[in-house]
Amino acid sequence: MTTALPTPPDVIRCAYAELVVTDLQASKWFYTELLGLVVTHETEDTLYLRAFEEYLHHSLVVRQGPVAALAKFAYRVRTPGDLDLAEEYYRALDVPVRRVPAGTTRGIGEAVQVVDPLGFPVEFFHEAEHVERFTQRYDVHGAGAISRLDHFNVVTPDVPAARAYYEGLGFKVSEDIEDERGTVYAAWMYRKPTVHDVALTGGDGPRMHHIAFATHERSQILHLCDHLGAVRRSDQIERGPGRHGVSNAFYLYLLDPDGHRIEIYTHDYYTGDPDNPVITWDVHDNQRRDWWGNPVVPSWYANASTVLDLDGNPRAVVERTDDREADVTIGADGFSYTRKDDEAVGFKVGHQV
Amino acid sequence: MTTALPTPPDVIRCAYAELVVTDLQASKWFYTELLGLVVTHETEDTLYLRAFEEYLHHSLVVRQGPVAALAKFAYRVRTPGDLDLAEEYYRALDVPVRRVPAGTTRGIGEAVQVVDPLGFPVEFFHEAEHVERFTQRYDVHGAGAISRLDHFNVVTPDVPAARAYYEGLGFKVSEDIEDERGTVYAAWMYRKPTVHDVALTGGDGPRMHHIAFATHERSQILHLCDHLGAVRRSDQIERGPGRHGVSNAFYLYLLDPDGHRIEIYTHDYYTGDPDNPVITWDVHDNQRRDWWGNPVVPSWYANASTVLDLDGNPRAVVERTDDREADVTIGADGFSYTRKDDEAVGFKVGHQV
Amino acid sequence: MTTALPTPPDVIRCAYAELVVTDLQASKWFYTELLGLVVTHETEDTLYLRAFEEYLHHSLVVRQGPVAALAKFAYRVRTPGDLDLAEEYYRALDVPVRRVPAGTTRGIGEAVQVVDPLGFPVEFFHEAEHVERFTQRYDVHGAGAISRLDHFNVVTPDVPAARAYYEGLGFKVSEDIEDERGTVYAAWMYRKPTVHDVALTGGDGPRMHHIAFATHERSQILHLCDHLGAVRRSDQIERGPGRHGVSNAFYLYLLDPDGHRIEIYTHDYYTGDPDNPVITWDVHDNQRRDWWGNPVVPSWYANASTVLDLDGNPRAVVERTDDREADVTIGADGFSYTRKDDEAVGFKVGHQV
Amino acid sequence: MTTALPTPPDVIRCAYAELVVTDLQASKWFYTELLGLVVTHETEDTLYLRAFEEYLHHSLVVRQGPVAALAKFAYRVRTPGDLDLAEEYYRALDVPVRRVPAGTTRGIGEAVQVVDPLGFPVEFFHEAEHVERFTQRYDVHGAGAISRLDHFNVVTPDVPAARAYYEGLGFKVSEDIEDERGTVYAAWMYRKPTVHDVALTGGDGPRMHHIAFATHERSQILHLCDHLGAVRRSDQIERGPGRHGVSNAFYLYLLDPDGHRIEIYTHDYYTGDPDNPVITWDVHDNQRRDWWGNPVVPSWYANASTVLDLDGNPRAVVERTDDREADVTIGADGFSYTRKDDEAVGFKVGHQV
Repeated sequence: MTTALPTPPDVIRCAYAELVVTDLQASKWFYTELLGLVVTHETEDTLYLRAFEEYLHHSLVVRQGPVAALAKFAYRVRTPGDLDLAEEYYRALDVPVRRVPAGTTRGIGEAVQVVDPLGFPVEFFHEAEHVERFTQRYDVHGAGAISRLDHFNVVTPDVPAARAYYEGLGFKVSEDIEDERGTVYAAWMYRKPTVHDVALTGGDGPRMHHIAFATHERSQILHLCDHLGAVRRSDQIERGPGRHGVSNAFYLYLLDPDGHRIEIYTHDYYTGDPDNPVITWDVHDNQRRDWWGNPVVPSWYANASTVLDLDGNPRAVVERTDDREADVTIGADGFSYTRKDDEAVGFKVGHQV
Repeated sequence: MTTALPTPPDVIRCAYAELVVTDLQASKWFYTELLGLVVTHETEDTLYLRAFEEYLHHSLVVRQGPVAALAKFAYRVRTPGDLDLAEEYYRALDVPVRRVPAGTTRGIGEAVQVVDPLGFPVEFFHEAEHVERFTQRYDVHGAGAISRLDHFNVVTPDVPAARAYYEGLGFKVSEDIEDERGTVYAAWMYRKPTVHDVALTGGDGPRMHHIAFATHERSQILHLCDHLGAVRRSDQIERGPGRHGVSNAFYLYLLDPDGHRIEIYTHDYYTGDPDNPVITWDVHDNQRRDWWGNPVVPSWYANASTVLDLDGNPRAVVERTDDREADVTIGADGFSYTRKDDEAVGFKVGHQV
Repeated sequence: MTTALPTPPDVIRCAYAELVVTDLQASKWFYTELLGLVVTHETEDTLYLRAFEEYLHHSLVVRQGPVAALAKFAYRVRTPGDLDLAEEYYRALDVPVRRVPAGTTRGIGEAVQVVDPLGFPVEFFHEAEHVERFTQRYDVHGAGAISRLDHFNVVTPDVPAARAYYEGLGFKVSEDIEDERGTVYAAWMYRKPTVHDVALTGGDGPRMHHIAFATHERSQILHLCDHLGAVRRSDQIERGPGRHGVSNAFYLYLLDPDGHRIEIYTHDYYTGDPDNPVITWDVHDNQRRDWWGNPVVPSWYANASTVLDLDGNPRAVVERTDDREADVTIGADGFSYTRKDDEAVGFKVGHQV
Repeated sequence: MTTALPTPPDVIRCAYAELVVTDLQASKWFYTELLGLVVTHETEDTLYLRAFEEYLHHSLVVRQGPVAALAKFAYRVRTPGDLDLAEEYYRALDVPVRRVPAGTTRGIGEAVQVVDPLGFPVEFFHEAEHVERFTQRYDVHGAGAISRLDHFNVVTPDVPAARAYYEGLGFKVSEDIEDERGTVYAAWMYRKPTVHDVALTGGDGPRMHHIAFATHERSQILHLCDHLGAVRRSDQIERGPGRHGVSNAFYLYLLDPDGHRIEIYTHDYYTGDPDNPVITWDVHDNQRRDWWGNPVVPSWYANASTVLDLDGNPRAVVERTDDREADVTIGADGFSYTRKDDEAVGFKVGHQV
């Protein structure tokens, strides 16, 4: 990052994602019947969805298309003037930038769309249509009620470079995973005062690792598992439920019908003070990814969604050259401990391949 | 079983277990600090423990000894006269039987001790000392409060034979696991109107698979995991938490410091009507052991505790000759489905070795 | 009760109630949309309902009629032969008795209907149609999912007499409320091993105080309150949620559209051992009815549902002549303490009229 | 407010309160044994306490003194330079201001102390000592674990004037309670993106209405009630538990041994976007203060804590001249409805004096 960059836009928070799916009806079941997201608007090929405590037009767009992919991540900025700042900022970064008029995405005002330096399609907007906030519409809240979008998680080969890019945009790190030689495997970064608006996961990228929604309580997350069992779709539970070490959140990873990974998440903590302590986890700490030491399934490390460029074409992926977290923690070549300086007994019996 | 057997004793429920451990202080931390069991009495080498809603002297005895083992399972019978019935019944079964005076086990009245036909050391008693019931002692209930002993689970080679033995003793089957050829892999049997007082798990036996305690809610079970993480003992979490298919219970399996398996369990259902429907699960149904399709770790199938005879000597184990559940469900030779008649997509990605 | 009575029927548990309502559509919303009971069968004027873990045809019948009332309480008996015992037993008690053929109530086999000595219309049956048990149908479980019928609560003038009647029928007392002079205000009695199948509440009777359904967790009870708020029917919340002193159960009392009181209830304890300790509460103990000391609303003491005789006519009510719990505990003439021997500070500030 | 005021300090959030109590040992039980706050430091006459997810030295100081009172509310500001802004701002407001060196309050850096225009003793600080964050110390989290300080609630006669003062300081309104004539009864205002950092309650003031701590889940709040019942101190439960209409939070009001009101609170919502919708409640809406329509106890409206000036002297109270919420909503002269335009049936039976 050069120091000569112009002032970045003031990002409030992660605001919505747009996913391309190959079978809209299958996705509709997943997002509206299972997850219970509210349909703000529906066309023949697109669903505009929001969670119960959201009052902007949508936090998720699900659109029929030829290839399952992430079409964009959108961040909300504080003022209309931040769009000008965004435009200048990304032009200075020499990446594709375009300004689109209000309504280019239904319910969203004028916006700046870029391919960010990490290769992701990202939109910045300020104006959006307001709709009813269903905070107290307990008559339609199911047992697995979801409150709001929480964060995006992106796969990128060079985590320190990605971190520097996001720091330039005003994000701060809450937690990260490193090893004793300084290799960084992942980092969590925020604008709103939660653990993250975006997480950076080291791997071949750009790919979308997951998007995450928040609930109030753990029982709502557990119900989603029970519900999937009841309809004989438990194979859409990829990982969890469990307690993260990083973030302390209670989590669950589901796979939508196209394999897009959706996390459901609760219990993280306030990070809004300027001196919020950064927590660095050792990549070999077996409780970093799951506080209970339950193993991370290999697919969680390996699989991620294709991302599109601004013209809707799938982007090529760059390989990670640093060590991979799965390699250094799973199997014969990797190792993890439960208690530091106690490696001999620290392996979890029976859980590792 | 011959039809000429005398009237069996009227068993009320599973009542207590006695475990031999090799490091009493380590076990004391596990059973009293982590699980929060109340210490009714403590001697130099023995702990007498109960859960918060229990008013008999103990539901668990933990005793220092040379070899980690199950010393006995105890069932409570309805009347003092049932001890005579028990004595006659087991003499007719031609197994070791002895009548012991009150106080042989602290807090327990006169009892009949037998090696049952499955090879387990089992005691029948009626009288027991009453102690304070801590149902509403919320001042000492921790976040992981346990209510009561729920069931025993035994490993035995021939499940149909074991089932016939327990039916002779008045137990009924609530659920079982079979395959299309009639092989029985496990059965759940009850006297009190819950899903079980004893479960029969097919395998090399006699060995103790686990003993289980009940909580009121799932949050209490989840806290035990969080607590183990906090003290860096997450490797004592063997399996779960999860939702069983069989019994519908929310479960967690922990390993005590000697590897004795303890289940924490809630949410099963009432079975007290005489026509309570029996549920038979297909051994290939991937949701039978975990409703969410999460894999059963191999150790859960393989490991179990040694059991002692009435003189305290470890008993030899007889191999199971029927198919083993692990073999027919895990890995290249086994298979499981999430949706019947949909095997191609029914495997859970990334979870099976 | 005379000792010359014949053998009573072997009652398993409370099994179903039949309520007459004056606006079936309003009641249908309450019982199926709010409480989420499953409709087994529906005719123009009657709903047959069950909770998610029940497999008999119904645990609640709601029937359109001219006057809101309880039409009958039904207990299930262990064998068909218990119907003969019931018939003989109630004939010996010299109360109205009639034997009705299978199908008299849809889904229920042959039955014996009586007006019991307390004046309530009571049915005994053994056979009933089996239907799907929705234990794991999490796809239709809402956030306020109800598991099963738990108990009946009856208002009767003379609690000791009512207790003696139910003891004659094989019920046992788990808890009661008395004063220092021996006046009994209420008693809880059971056949199945929970705190009660029937509670006896001292007051003008025979009237139905409430019927109660059980949930697995407290969050399900809290959701019912949230749901009523969302549809602006919070005035149907009569009392609670709270924690009972008696039974330790977490509770909520709702009023159906005709004012029939429905309790939702969880967290009571196992009572199935023959020496289960009886707990006697002092009527002046301010935590007996609510462990948190929250006041009992006057309507809860005053109001109750009319009961019908076997021909469907409302029964006259007999006044209680003993002291009334409301009189001795609320207001200027009554008193309650939080800490025994500490009356001066034991009143709850601001809560008592 | 004049437009000529200097730039106000950038307030991050409410940060700590200092209470004077008359029996420190009694208070210690309440704050550390019941609420489970962590003791950062303890002297003969003062406790410095924090909740489990807090890393600043304390969020509550409890100090022995002659008269129970609020000694100060403290807000954290974003930078050291904000102290200069605070000093100038309050000097321009012509209220008592003093700058105190680091350590004046243990663990807190240099600070500016003022009597704010509403009459409350308020401190602004930036620097504070960091201590261990107990987020994942589940080994010491009890069943009623508290995460962090959430807000202050102040009683003030003129709510619109108080709102204007706090808006001048950069706070925004999330919700308020008004009547059809424009009288404002209460307002909720925030800096951090929750429903509030401070609530303004109309009444005789300056007095402290309460301070509030947040938990993750409702079960933790319910446990505090159970715990108080177990130690026979249920009379310290003043109001609740319940669900607020305003804020949607699940709540409980406790009274500490001196009558200082402490709220425990969870489930409010994100307010961090600049166009967060303001919700105005009608004072006659019976669900505004409790979504379930449960009555507000009179003491909750009437009682509040004395506040001290900067020299530790109790401040005189100014009477509210606008209508009082209790008067217009409770009893014969007030009224509330559950359903607008449906007053006849909208009263909650049996709950209003």
